Amino acid sequence: MGKVSSVSPFAPKTLAKLPIIDGVAFATAEAGIRYKDRTDLLLAVLDEGTSVAGVLTQSKTASAPVLACRKHLKKGEARALVVNSGNANAFTGKKGSDAVDITVAHAVQAVGCKPHEVFVASTGVIGEPLDAEKFAHLLSGLATETEPDAFEKAARAIMTTDTYPKLTTRTALIGDVEVTINGFCKGAGMIAPDMATMLCFIFTDAAISSDALQELLAEHAETTFNCMTVDGDTSTSDTCLMFATGKAEARGQKPITKANSKKLKAFSEALFDLMRDLAIQVAKDGEGLTKFVTFEVGGAKSWQAARTIALACANSPILKTAIAGEDPNWGRVVMAVGKSGEAANRDRLSIWFGPYCVARDGERAEDYDEKTVAAYMKNSEILIRVDVGVGKSGARVWTCDLTHGYVSINADYRS
Amino acid sequence: MGKVSSVSPFAPKTLAKLPIIDGVAFATAEAGIRYKDRTDLLLAVLDEGTSVAGVLTQSKTASAPVLACRKHLKKGEARALVVNSGNANAFTGKKGSDAVDITVAHAVQAVGCKPHEVFVASTGVIGEPLDAEKFAHLLSGLATETEPDAFEKAARAIMTTDTYPKLTTRTALIGDVEVTINGFCKGAGMIAPDMATMLCFIFTDAAISSDALQELLAEHAETTFNCMTVDGDTSTSDTCLMFATGKAEARGQKPITKANSKKLKAFSEALFDLMRDLAIQVAKDGEGLTKFVTFEVGGAKSWQAARTIALACANSPILKTAIAGEDPNWGRVVMAVGKSGEAANRDRLSIWFGPYCVARDGERAEDYDEKTVAAYMKNSEILIRVDVGVGKSGARVWTCDLTHGYVSINADYRS
Repeated sequence: MGKVSSVSPFAPKTLAKLPIIDGVAFATAEAGIRYKDRTDLLLAVLDEGTSVAGVLTQSKTASAPVLACRKHLKKGEARALVVNSGNANAFTGKKGSDAVDITVAHAVQAVGCKPHEVFVASTGVIGEPLDAEKFAHLLSGLATETEPDAFEKAARAIMTTDTYPKLTTRTALIGDVEVTINGFCKGAGMIAPDMATMLCFIFTDAAISSDALQELLAEHAETTFNCMTVDGDTSTSDTCLMFATGKAEARGQKPITKANSKKLKAFSEALFDLMRDLAIQVAKDGEGLTKFVTFEVGGAKSWQAARTIALACANSPILKTAIAGEDPNWGRVVMAVGKSGEAANRDRLSIWFGPYCVARDGERAEDYDEKTVAAYMKNSEILIRVDVGVGKSGARVWTCDLTHGYVSINADYRS
Repeated sequence: MGKVSSVSPFAPKTLAKLPIIDGVAFATAEAGIRYKDRTDLLLAVLDEGTSVAGVLTQSKTASAPVLACRKHLKKGEARALVVNSGNANAFTGKKGSDAVDITVAHAVQAVGCKPHEVFVASTGVIGEPLDAEKFAHLLSGLATETEPDAFEKAARAIMTTDTYPKLTTRTALIGDVEVTINGFCKGAGMIAPDMATMLCFIFTDAAISSDALQELLAEHAETTFNCMTVDGDTSTSDTCLMFATGKAEARGQKPITKANSKKLKAFSEALFDLMRDLAIQVAKDGEGLTKFVTFEVGGAKSWQAARTIALACANSPILKTAIAGEDPNWGRVVMAVGKSGEAANRDRLSIWFGPYCVARDGERAEDYDEKTVAAYMKNSEILIRVDVGVGKSGARVWTCDLTHGYVSINADYRS
């Protein structure tokens, strides 16, 4: 079995350096909500005229901040984002919504905006009351200390069991004006696709209406964050928000109000690429992982069916432990395909581990060589491809292996 | 974290001693299919007039033996059962059905019956061709050596990663004639409810038609085997067969042809009790377990909804590892309820760990005392109850914790 280390083996050696985005600035604080000696509170201040879009957890026990975001998103305007780590403010009843109200009220004072322009997100332990008085009073001070060149600081403040901050940046042309998109996110366990599956915040200086932004964000969430899983567990708190400050308008970018505008094509592609990058960064920081795993399913009846089959593989404990054990146990891929409930032709099913065909047309490949495939399993990045033989659609899902490290981390999370 | 031992901590100190059932006898052999120095082949010979019923995996990649059982069940008559362990004969293409044909042909010769009266089951590694020539020739010899008092031997021959054989017995009156029901089964990993979720064989001397038997078996499978999970993984091979030799007719039992006959009430209850006992024995031998866990969900809209919610809890890796860590992390119960997709009222949700209410009406219980509940988590049998506050239906699901032992067993299964 691969070695489990305290930092993901996929942690980048150097972090991406993100350029500033005109119209947004950050400040962080050590509020001591749960963690000691690290930042756990983030304030992002957005200039007037910023539009916002969001994709939120579909959990039936969504947290108080998620409910607030859902409400505030209706107006599509943003001036402040407040995020705390260490406590999810989920399943905290009336106290939970009170804590959100207190936070919003302090942010309104600090930034000088309307309540619906404030977005809040919380991540950490579920079920413990969050004492907003402990940190909300810090917001007025933070609002005076914001700096634009602080994406890494912001990304660090929202981490929980993450072993590295997750950041990335892209540029795109809208017309002939170059705009920037920056994003950062957190997430390592309790990660499964059901809309946004982590905290993720994306910022751009492009001038795009909230409706158009919403359409783009939701579309790309389906094929990025919603195609990534660590343990199949959907959080109560997961939130992906995107803010467009519109500052590129001053440089000549004509504001866009329709998601299907041809002018948005390059931007949409860059956004997809950024979101996929962040989704993969989350999978590569899966709790206790030793291997990053991609499942590609083809020959399915639809993209949805292919994703369901790929997720059945990616969420199978018995298959994920085999991968941790560097065992090319492709029989467990057969099992996972079979349990997915989606159409598959048992007698046309083919499976590849990396470049090696292990099963073809419903049985072990004639040229299958266990030693060769076992050697492939020593790699830290594993690609498993499946053709289910019933159609022409495909999907790709990212995940990691299931290791002793995952068990250790989650058996002791609160102690 | 509880100690992981090589034998389940729930292994019975003494195995149940099963009485003989008139009309059935067993023989076993060391065929060397995969294991060394242990039996791996079972032949059960049934007297003429035996009726049969079966519940089979719903996997889309069901094994060759499952397909054969499905076909043979249509006639409802049985004379022989052949089971091998070590190789599942699943995903073995044409070779797989050939292996079944060879096995059936040898059994027909050995027992002197028709092909549709032979039932076959295989369990073990998926995807490796099963060489039936290696063992089918043994059946003629085995047929001459069968003994009725050999349930434990039979149960041992079908084990894979099981750490103990699972056997149980019940009696019931049909009219004023006492009949016996014996059952044994195997299963420890790749266990999830989707019809039968293991190999299970049940024998009775009652005279009951195959149609009536089928109805009873399917009904009770729903609330027993289909309410039990180890890892949420559905096998390609799972098979539950029940044989009724009808020998009690000689002692005056009037044959029964309708499942809803009032005379079957006590028998039906005894059968349910036997199947529940076996299902719990499987959960108590879950791979690497240290704790046996029962989830009881109440206040749901229907039994199906309650079961779905209970299974979302029972299959959540992050919740199961918390239980392994003896951490009363009830926030993860909230998460699992939320991700189930079934109706739940966040603000009326209540949760108990054993006798202790940890959450009431959507937030932490006022009298919650972490130390008391943490002490409860030291128990080896854990009961978690949830009321989701939207209806009057309930369901119960049995499972185990997710430990380092599970990871170790499944990372190295084939090596």
